[in-house]
Amino acid sequence: MSDIITLAHGSGGKLTHDLIRDIFIKHFSNDILTRAEDSAVLDVEAGRLAFTTDSFVITPVFFKGGDIGKLAVCGTVNDLAASGARPLYLGCGFIIEEAFPIRQLEEIAASMAETAAGCGVKIVAGDTKVVQRGAADKIFINTSGIGIIPEGINISASNAKPGDSVIITGTIGDHGCSILLEREMLGIKADIKSDCAALSGLTGSVLPLYPRLHVMRDPTRGGVAAALNEIASQSGVCIRLYENALPVREDVMGVCGLLGMEPLYMANEGKMLIIAPADISRGILDRLKKHEHGKDSAIIGEVLEAPSKRVLMTTLAGGDRIIEMPSGDQLPRIC
Amino acid sequence: MSDIITLAHGSGGKLTHDLIRDIFIKHFSNDILTRAEDSAVLDVEAGRLAFTTDSFVITPVFFKGGDIGKLAVCGTVNDLAASGARPLYLGCGFIIEEAFPIRQLEEIAASMAETAAGCGVKIVAGDTKVVQRGAADKIFINTSGIGIIPEGINISASNAKPGDSVIITGTIGDHGCSILLEREMLGIKADIKSDCAALSGLTGSVLPLYPRLHVMRDPTRGGVAAALNEIASQSGVCIRLYENALPVREDVMGVCGLLGMEPLYMANEGKMLIIAPADISRGILDRLKKHEHGKDSAIIGEVLEAPSKRVLMTTLAGGDRIIEMPSGDQLPRIC
Repeated sequence: MSDIITLAHGSGGKLTHDLIRDIFIKHFSNDILTRAEDSAVLDVEAGRLAFTTDSFVITPVFFKGGDIGKLAVCGTVNDLAASGARPLYLGCGFIIEEAFPIRQLEEIAASMAETAAGCGVKIVAGDTKVVQRGAADKIFINTSGIGIIPEGINISASNAKPGDSVIITGTIGDHGCSILLEREMLGIKADIKSDCAALSGLTGSVLPLYPRLHVMRDPTRGGVAAALNEIASQSGVCIRLYENALPVREDVMGVCGLLGMEPLYMANEGKMLIIAPADISRGILDRLKKHEHGKDSAIIGEVLEAPSKRVLMTTLAGGDRIIEMPSGDQLPRIC
Repeated sequence: MSDIITLAHGSGGKLTHDLIRDIFIKHFSNDILTRAEDSAVLDVEAGRLAFTTDSFVITPVFFKGGDIGKLAVCGTVNDLAASGARPLYLGCGFIIEEAFPIRQLEEIAASMAETAAGCGVKIVAGDTKVVQRGAADKIFINTSGIGIIPEGINISASNAKPGDSVIITGTIGDHGCSILLEREMLGIKADIKSDCAALSGLTGSVLPLYPRLHVMRDPTRGGVAAALNEIASQSGVCIRLYENALPVREDVMGVCGLLGMEPLYMANEGKMLIIAPADISRGILDRLKKHEHGKDSAIIGEVLEAPSKRVLMTTLAGGDRIIEMPSGDQLPRIC
């Protein structure tokens, strides 16, 4: 086997099959994938399925706290988890630039396999394309996922109600800040790493106890600001944040201060926003804090009736500020 | 709205939402997609689901007989159809190069919508990423798909049995040959267009009558040669082709002859290989020929016991030739 990916690895012929066997089947191995059919065949019970897709184009491919493979599994698992689903199956599509090192591809596959196994998810379908040098930047990964939504769960970005509390499951801005530092050669020394994590274990520890919670959304691109604006808009409510309650790591705050950026607008890859009736929000918070991915959970705001479709923030100074949907180009290729 | 895709369209903020609303929701509109949740929620009956994923990196993006959007829908629909499934839902992930014309993106979306509607499939989940100029070549699309496999259907590349007949649903090599001509500026004038088509209608017209058929596979990258080698290998059988029975358009044969290429190794995007017991193969053939996508169907070979895992061809001259799994790099970015 050569050291680098060649166009022949994407031809559908012998080298494609060798690559699938030696990298993907080797790491992802399960009874469904190894059948090598045109589609994976899944036995399902009657009920509600969650289905989602996400592409990952992050640069750099390897970063502090993860790599594109771990991110691709976490991202889709978290979208399923945000719908209240138990994630079960993933499909992954690789677009690889000619000359990408096979050793790095194997590292990425191993990382995907480990992350998937960690949340009980099987990678059951895959596809590999190779493009000429310069036609893509190293590697892009799409993951699509299927999960099962337990009965009685009704989570939607349209469900926020006045009186609800807004919870975040930990510190904000870690992923965006860490990628910014890795990429921009700013000469800033800070030990910030991506929060990249699969959250289905965390949400699964809360949902059976609090099936009545209203909204979950993972605040990735566009950060907490974008996710809350989406929810405010879809639910027709106002969301008020308390700046003094936002959990932000000191070093993240420091870097953001230096660069004139705001953690509220920075991507997270291991955090969930949860909106729930106030009477159960304290119980949810206690439960979240018991989980390794929820230790820094906090109630960061509340849902009001008006001004509808708006996100406001009560600042440290005690004033009110509108938190807009981000509108310019944020840091590209953050996920 | 600007004329070209900018990095801000991929930021997760306002322009991302505008793009989704003005292009994707506009064309793909259905009750599930427009909910804009992190996952699509699908009601399913108990049974067997088919699930598959495929990325499309074809160049050029628009070609005779289709475009990357139509191809992306057909490719995944055909993988589901090849498993005997009725395709129901698609997710699509777009990776777009900065400065890609929005008008072309809309053309592609319209083409996807039309193709999906034509086979009763809903596009229920999506994702859009934008990468800087030079980090991708124009546009890549991933489609993942879910279908339902009716009871009593058991189709697998492992099911070919000695005595079976091998059917192809039409002329071979059209897609590969047409892309080759578009790309390579060979100065050859030929009116060859891609066969790009969704085949779920065709397979759905046969399966209820002949649920006992053994194998279906769509011979895309690597062509009929790669697909039959996979089947011979997975089923542990020999497949013998009759060269005089292969349906090849005269102009495709001519171009291939000029370039020293073989239609057997060229990609198809609207053809299905079907392997079935000899006693029902004539009935299947008659049925296929009644469908617009099966008019040129032909029985092109048979399944033998030995030499196992081999594909042979009885040539026009009457000799025997081994049809190998393709091993070099074929034409890259054919799909």
